[in-house]
Amino acid sequence: MERLLQQIEFIRKIDALKDVIRRSYILSGHRRENSAEHSWHVSLASLLLAEHANEEIDTVKVAKMLLIHDIIEVIAGDTYIYDDAACDGQDEREIEAANEIFGLLPDDQTVEFRTLWDEFEAVETKDAKFAKAIDRLMPFLHNYGTKGVSWKEHGIHASQVRSIMSAIRPGSEVLWQYVSGLVDDAIAKGYLPE
Amino acid sequence: MERLLQQIEFIRKIDALKDVIRRSYILSGHRRENSAEHSWHVSLASLLLAEHANEEIDTVKVAKMLLIHDIIEVIAGDTYIYDDAACDGQDEREIEAANEIFGLLPDDQTVEFRTLWDEFEAVETKDAKFAKAIDRLMPFLHNYGTKGVSWKEHGIHASQVRSIMSAIRPGSEVLWQYVSGLVDDAIAKGYLPE
Repeated sequence: MERLLQQIEFIRKIDALKDVIRRSYILSGHRRENSAEHSWHVSLASLLLAEHANEEIDTVKVAKMLLIHDIIEVIAGDTYIYDDAACDGQDEREIEAANEIFGLLPDDQTVEFRTLWDEFEAVETKDAKFAKAIDRLMPFLHNYGTKGVSWKEHGIHASQVRSIMSAIRPGSEVLWQYVSGLVDDAIAKGYLPE
Repeated sequence: MERLLQQIEFIRKIDALKDVIRRSYILSGHRRENSAEHSWHVSLASLLLAEHANEEIDTVKVAKMLLIHDIIEVIAGDTYIYDDAACDGQDEREIEAANEIFGLLPDDQTVEFRTLWDEFEAVETKDAKFAKAIDRLMPFLHNYGTKGVSWKEHGIHASQVRSIMSAIRPGSEVLWQYVSGLVDDAIAKGYLPE
């Protein structure tokens, strides 16, 4: 029973991820996306797009990684990827947050989730590289699909998008090619300044 | 490339699940929950609580089922479980929706996702029973955690909650016992009329 109560407490605590608001807009365009629904979307997308990974991946591990990858934001908040100042100190904040949030779970599950999160953050394994690729792909699709509204709000240029999107390539050459084409298209359509 | 475009189209289409609003409130209490973030929450909860299933389950299958279980609402909308009139014709609407939405995918993935969804809906296998248990547990935790605000808004009584929550028992006796205790507690605290 003690174990169940610890698990329920964690499940209740991470509900706050629904209140962490990202910069991207959902495709209907009327509001910004939160990190919980983003996590659902990337996890599902990873299952669907697994065949496009550069190497054969452990799809289950990738989907789990993406379900939990943003949970630390419940404490650390979302950090806008194009904001260099905000990214300063992000690692330390997120590690402290990981200790705190995953520490709520029974010990074996703390270790299991923390190991997954550490692997995702390090982006060294083929599974983490593909998870990262999907995590970069989705906000791009949201920005492109909303005619660059979030890019425009933050004065983002194509060179910045290309730089951030280059993290897709180690995970999936196919998705990288696809996104590269859409970046050119976004410039041509005026969603994104060159 | 044709395959990738079909997959991306599906991924874009299901973004609309973020605009399907459920009756339950998120725990911070300031707005109702949408079906995309709910899907994230139940999928993750199923991984954490798998040990409480009555039988040994395929955790991966259950988590996948829960990631996709509400996708049909993109077309069919959410049906409030305590609204008998709305539940009338729900099956037909949802099957048509499933044909349409899963039909966007490449054929092999249409079959894979549709098979999972059909299994979830039939609630006959041990995996589907546990998935259903988690899908019932979460809104209960939201209602309890927000002092019954959604129950009060819709004039729900304890007998209705007990009836709907009884679907937890075939999947998990442990979770059923836990929820039964909280139902009594909700009555005692005035969240839910007897």
